[in-house]
Amino acid sequence: MRNLKRLEKVGVGIISSDKITQFLNVSSVQFRKDLSYFGGFGKPGVGYEVKQLSKEIENILGVNQKWDIALVGAGRLGGALSRFEGFSRFNLRIVCAFDNNKNVIGKRRGCVLVQDSKNLKKTVGKKKIKIAIIATPVEAAQNVCDELVNAGVKGILNFSPLVLRVPAGVCVSNVDMACELESLIYFAKRRNN
Amino acid sequence: MRNLKRLEKVGVGIISSDKITQFLNVSSVQFRKDLSYFGGFGKPGVGYEVKQLSKEIENILGVNQKWDIALVGAGRLGGALSRFEGFSRFNLRIVCAFDNNKNVIGKRRGCVLVQDSKNLKKTVGKKKIKIAIIATPVEAAQNVCDELVNAGVKGILNFSPLVLRVPAGVCVSNVDMACELESLIYFAKRRNN
Repeated sequence: MRNLKRLEKVGVGIISSDKITQFLNVSSVQFRKDLSYFGGFGKPGVGYEVKQLSKEIENILGVNQKWDIALVGAGRLGGALSRFEGFSRFNLRIVCAFDNNKNVIGKRRGCVLVQDSKNLKKTVGKKKIKIAIIATPVEAAQNVCDELVNAGVKGILNFSPLVLRVPAGVCVSNVDMACELESLIYFAKRRNN
Repeated sequence: MRNLKRLEKVGVGIISSDKITQFLNVSSVQFRKDLSYFGGFGKPGVGYEVKQLSKEIENILGVNQKWDIALVGAGRLGGALSRFEGFSRFNLRIVCAFDNNKNVIGKRRGCVLVQDSKNLKKTVGKKKIKIAIIATPVEAAQNVCDELVNAGVKGILNFSPLVLRVPAGVCVSNVDMACELESLIYFAKRRNN
């Protein structure tokens, strides 16, 4: 979707199947297979209308709706995330933030004031929040995760290095730069020997 | 490795196979299979010596060696990365930074001064740097990647949303929070309908 928007920006209206897969650095087989999960797109012998395909993918992903999110852990990392401008591009908005550190509770993070973690379940439930970010120390991550799930959260962006246990029906995405770095070091080391 | 270090910190000396897989939230089959790629660990009927296993994994990963890294793209994201303290935990050190923006060249990022991107190939080659971070706008990412590979880089941490083309023998890890968010939104949307 983001790459289609890049094409839109430079004025590409229609693009052939060959050209788009080249632009995306993916194989044409993979591209067709991925899209086929969601129906038929493009015109045989013509290609894809960039703007239309971009809108359809936005719609499939659900990023054309507004989503409220909760931030748990409002320390250094949480603070940086609350200033991240990328969220608004996805119609995401941090509407509440929680911490159990007295020095952080009451402080401003982005557009919200940090609440005591004790209020987590009540606030998240009342606001019907479905997506949350965990930016707590690793020791707290599983407990926070359980509370979020109990409060009705269905998607968790996990910045802690812990493999979170969640029931079926809840999705966890992990953002773990350290883990990526470890893989790279391992790879570079083997190449270097 | 990080979880073993957590166990070390709280004073756990020896841990049984059952307990460690519970602690890690992974299946015991997976745990044994993963370790078996690298040899034999632990003692049957006893378990694993936490400190020893941690050292062995450090050694396998190569994080007990020092690694110099290059940062390309020293704008807002690159600047934040240059202040990231986590790198030193992996014995990683940003030893040079590059940008093509005149307003950024010459500025301090962490412990280094930002150089003109023109110097990239020469500096990276001379310093024999094997790991680099790409934090440029998406339009520049593939060119930067090609230059890094030509200069001898074997591992790239890619913060751009582009699928980078690299030759065999070069490893790319992608850190793409936006992509993770899109997955979560898609999932939460389906759960909500």
